[in-house]
This record gives sequence, structure tokens and C-alpha cells, in this order.
Amino acid sequence: MSKYWSEITKNIEPYVCGEQPKDKKYIKLNTNENPYPPSPKVIEAIKNAANEDLRLYPDPNCDELRETIAKYYKLDKKQVFIGNGSDEVLAFSFLTFFNQDEDIIFPDISYSFYPVYAKLYKLDYRLAKLKEDFSINVEDFLCENGGVIIPNPNAPTGRTLDIEAIKRILEYNSNKVVIIDEAYVDFGGESVVKLIKDYSNLLVVQTLSKSRSLAGIRIGFALGQEELIDGLNRIKNSMNSYTVDRIAAKAAVAAIEDETYFKECASKIVNTRERVVEGLKKIGFEVIPSKANFIFASHPEINGEKLFLILRENGLLVRYFNKPRINNYLRITIGSEEEMGIFLEKLKMIVAEIISKDK
Amino acid sequence: MSKYWSEITKNIEPYVCGEQPKDKKYIKLNTNENPYPPSPKVIEAIKNAANEDLRLYPDPNCDELRETIAKYYKLDKKQVFIGNGSDEVLAFSFLTFFNQDEDIIFPDISYSFYPVYAKLYKLDYRLAKLKEDFSINVEDFLCENGGVIIPNPNAPTGRTLDIEAIKRILEYNSNKVVIIDEAYVDFGGESVVKLIKDYSNLLVVQTLSKSRSLAGIRIGFALGQEELIDGLNRIKNSMNSYTVDRIAAKAAVAAIEDETYFKECASKIVNTRERVVEGLKKIGFEVIPSKANFIFASHPEINGEKLFLILRENGLLVRYFNKPRINNYLRITIGSEEEMGIFLEKLKMIVAEIISKDK
Repeated sequence: MSKYWSEITKNIEPYVCGEQPKDKKYIKLNTNENPYPPSPKVIEAIKNAANEDLRLYPDPNCDELRETIAKYYKLDKKQVFIGNGSDEVLAFSFLTFFNQDEDIIFPDISYSFYPVYAKLYKLDYRLAKLKEDFSINVEDFLCENGGVIIPNPNAPTGRTLDIEAIKRILEYNSNKVVIIDEAYVDFGGESVVKLIKDYSNLLVVQTLSKSRSLAGIRIGFALGQEELIDGLNRIKNSMNSYTVDRIAAKAAVAAIEDETYFKECASKIVNTRERVVEGLKKIGFEVIPSKANFIFASHPEINGEKLFLILRENGLLVRYFNKPRINNYLRITIGSEEEMGIFLEKLKMIVAEIISKDK
Repeated sequence: MSKYWSEITKNIEPYVCGEQPKDKKYIKLNTNENPYPPSPKVIEAIKNAANEDLRLYPDPNCDELRETIAKYYKLDKKQVFIGNGSDEVLAFSFLTFFNQDEDIIFPDISYSFYPVYAKLYKLDYRLAKLKEDFSINVEDFLCENGGVIIPNPNAPTGRTLDIEAIKRILEYNSNKVVIIDEAYVDFGGESVVKLIKDYSNLLVVQTLSKSRSLAGIRIGFALGQEELIDGLNRIKNSMNSYTVDRIAAKAAVAAIEDETYFKECASKIVNTRERVVEGLKKIGFEVIPSKANFIFASHPEINGEKLFLILRENGLLVRYFNKPRINNYLRITIGSEEEMGIFLEKLKMIVAEIISKDK
């Protein structure tokens, strides 16, 4: 604690992101990255953009990228906001739409960055307690509040909320913004982008980090009616006019345009996921049904933290959250078919060994 | 104004950045960009980084870049903070070090983003009125306050504050953070990085956008003792863990390492600046002494706004601020030798025409 820190700096609890290890080679299944490289067209676009124009500021409005995303989703360019990763888009959204002294609501088990944003902006929040099977109780969101945010599919559970439930939440909260965080929607979830025309309070947030294999390039975006996007621009332009660099914008355009490649990769991940789920069940894991590029699983006879550490020693990196209700679970990103084959084989041996020792 | 906007969103006054025109070809002297392209080594580094690793998140701590900058400035890696452009670094700094209900101080004529940040975070501020010649009155900063920020060289004036004056400000305000914004220091100013070891309240902010020709890549950084950098990291990690993408980090490392190229470009700009100053004086302009890559000038017989508009029509884009005390001035970025030759020639004719018409 430094005397130079502001009261806010002293009181916040920063987010701790998944480890980016440098000590040795892991099968890295801890930060929901895509196992497949970005489209070759993305690589080409970056190389083409590596030129003398880098001396100039980027387009602060990201017009070309906004047009590309708008076309992809059949929206207007004015309904698209671009940010430096969806974390930045979410950070801006909390400040743009939520007020102090009005509780916002999100699930008790969800993206652990939400309470961090709330604390940063001194926003009060209520946690909607998920059911025992980690599904959302819609009624929890049908009450007075200062705004709602729900990841769909939820993280780290992978569970989805159906579109009719989201409509009910949007309708009940018509004077408050409802943010649907669709970071993982491309792996089998159903997007609510199509509801934007009917709901002026709906903001959909997506990212290129997962399904477009571009975690390293930092592009996220928000979709909503123009007045919501205008609000986001007001906040952005009060912090940093140029959040997206020239290279990243070009890479993102190429990634969105190469729909075939994107669909192939997403489909491979979905197929692998289903096989991994079966494999895990066979060795005694309980697996939450997932529509994301990760699965959330626990073994009734094995301590989650212990298993996490043993896997780590064996070069298998997954994510473990030491939090109430989920402290026996592991979040396992879906890697390539080959990686998951090795993972399952090693895991099977480790599980057998632990169980035999414990007996 | 939307009912969905938070109170903060409703009340802020976003920054308006210099135009990035798309309508026609200009000699673009309005946003202090470098006329020379980035180092060829930067282009090469970007092309090498355009690979399949982009599927992975970047290093959230930017270790390689921090080490490179630390080495360049003979600091420790722990004394370096990296951000997505110096605007982001400044936005984080205001939140990290300044408190509501304590006036911060900055010059009345300085970077127009400062009051925007203050408004965003509901910080009170006092403006230190520059003298008639736009120099800083040091006494204005020797009083009770919640923190200080001074650009050195100042923008848009180009004037510098000498190091002894900065020491007095640091010593008087030993319990408050003093930010020296050195965005333009590489064009003849004297950096106060060397004071960091002696002043725990000093934060120096720099950028790669100007002297390293990388406005398009978005890298800024802050230098200071470890407790200040730790505070910045707390705020960053409460908003966005990965603000700097893989490509930008690699480009920045190459840019810092190619010191020879950087010095050549900066030196060419300084030489051109001195010739432009002479040229402007010859046609009747009053020019504020500049150590930046721009000059601030006014013509006693010609209205600044009118001249700005006529220049624009003639394909010469400079920056005009319609603000008290400086509304007869133009801020002119130093372009290449060739650009500035054309600029001076056209300006000379325009000035002659205006004056002859007005007679």
C-alpha cells in the first residue's frame, strides 16, 4: 500500500488472469485459447499492414472494421463499437450504463472480472445464485436493479440460457441495460444479436480472442442500438481515442471475412469437445453440459485443487478457481484433437493412481 | 442524451482528436505525427510476429518490452509500465494517483485531454495560468494540491520547463504524485527520467507515437519508482489485463532497440523545425520557441481560424484550438523537409493575399 495511491487504487481487487507460463512446455488448456492458428488471410493482412503508414494514427472510429462486422451481422455500422479486447469493452460498458447506488445483477458463478469492474467504479451488485446444476434462475433477474450482465454461454460453467429466457429479462428490465456477454457463443450457443432491432436495452459483447483464434491481437466489440453505442463512444473518447491499432484492425477485418476458416475451426473444437466429455465421463467425472470451448468438470472422489496441481506437474495446464461452490471443479479448455488425446490418456492414469493411493 | 446512459456518461465532455481526413490528400500537419516511417527493423519485427502464436494471449506484463525500455533508460524492469498509447497511460494515472475532493493542478494551456480525464473521474482541478509568453510560473505549483501534471515540452506551445524548476515542484509536493508528460521530449527537451531514483513521487510518461514514428501501433509507457508502477498495474488489471497486443509489443521492442534510426529521424525533424521557424518569422509570424515536433505560431495581422480554414482548402492541414488566449494560434506539426518547403511556399502566398485583400 503506497501513500501515493488514490483511495480507489487502495480498495480495488485486481483481476488475476490465467497463467501464461514461461518455465516449460505445457499442453495449455487454462485460458480458453483456440488451438488452431488464425486464418492464413489474417497473417497476410498483418504483413500487408506492416508498412510506413504505421507512423500515422489509426482511424479512431475503426470504420472499416465496423462496416465488416455490421455486414456480417446484418446491422448498421452505427450499431457497432470496437474495443481493445472484450475486457475493455466490458470495462467501458460498466461505466457507460451503470450507476452508483443501483444494484446491478449477475450470476454468482460467472466471469470473475465482473465484480472487479464493479469495485473499480464503486458499483453495488447482487449475485443471482445459480441452481445446483449451475443453470440460471430467470426470476432472479426480474426485479428492480441498475442493470444486468450475463455471459451466454456462461463461464466457467459452459451452460447456456435460452433465448426466450433472455427476452423475459430484456422485457422486465426495459429501462435498464442488459449486457449479454457472448465471448463463447460461436461454439454452439445461440446469439441474441437478432434481438437488437427489437430491444433498445440490449448490448451484446463478443470477442475475436476465442473463435477467431486472435487472443494475441486484442479485438472485442459491442453490438446494440445506436444510443448505446454512442454512450460507449463517449466513455472511450474520455479515456483513449485510439484503442485499436492499425495492424489489429486489419487483422480483425480479415478474420471476420474468412468465414469458412472460422466455421471449420469452431466445428472441429465442438467435435473434440463432445469426445472429451465422453472420455471424462468414462473415468468418473461429472461434466456440466457445455456449449463453449471449455468444459467444467469435477471428480466426486478427487480434490479439485490437488488434481489441478498434479496435472500441472505433468505438463497439463487447466484452470482452477478456489471459490465457494466450484472449488472442486476444473475448467478445461478444448485444445486440438491431438492435445486432448494426450490429455485424456494422462488424466486417466493420474486419476487411477490417485484413487488407488487413497484406498 | 439516452435514458440508458449513466450519470457519468451524461456529464462528461469527450476529447476530440485531430482529424484523420479521408476526403483528399493533405500535407498532414495536424496531429504531430512523424513524417518518417518507422525503422525497417520494426517492419521486419511485425512480419516475424505475424504467426500462429497470435492465437495465444500476449504476455500481460509485457516483460520483454519492459526490459528493453528499462535497459535503454538504465532503470529496473519494475520501474516500467506499458500501456496502449500514452493516452491510456495518462487515463490510468489520473485514476491511480488522484483523489476526488483534492484539486489537481495543470497549466491552463496544455494537453486538452487532462480536463477530460478529470471530468471522467470527477476530479477537481485548478489551472495554473501560463505567463503571457506561455512559460510556466513555477510558484503556481508550490501550494497544497492533490497532484500535478505538466507536459514538458508543453503542448500545444512547445515550450520547455527546466529541470531545476521541476525539482522544486517535486520537492514541494513530496506527498503527491507529479506527472511529467514527456510525449515530445525527444525533439530537444531534457528528460527527467534521471530524477526517478531521487524522487519517489515522480512519474514520467512517454510514447512511441511521435519520435519513434509509431502512432499507428499504440504504445505508451510510464517510468517511476516501483510503488507507483504497482499502483498503475492495480488499475490496469481492474480494467483490462491485456492492453498491449503481441504485434505491438514486438514492434515497440524493435523501435527502442534501433536507436541510430530514431536519432537520425529526430535530428532531421529538429533541423527542419529550425528552418521552418525562420521561414515563418520572415513572413511575419510570431513563433513560440519550441523543443517539440510542432510549432505554435500566430500572425498579428491575420485571424487564426480564418487562416486555418484557408490552409485546409489548400490541402494544408494544421491544428487550430478555438480556446481563450490561443484562438489566434496555429499548431503546425513538423513534416518532412520537402513537405515543409511546400507548406512555407504556399503559406507565404496565402498570407500575402490575405493581407493585400484586407488593405
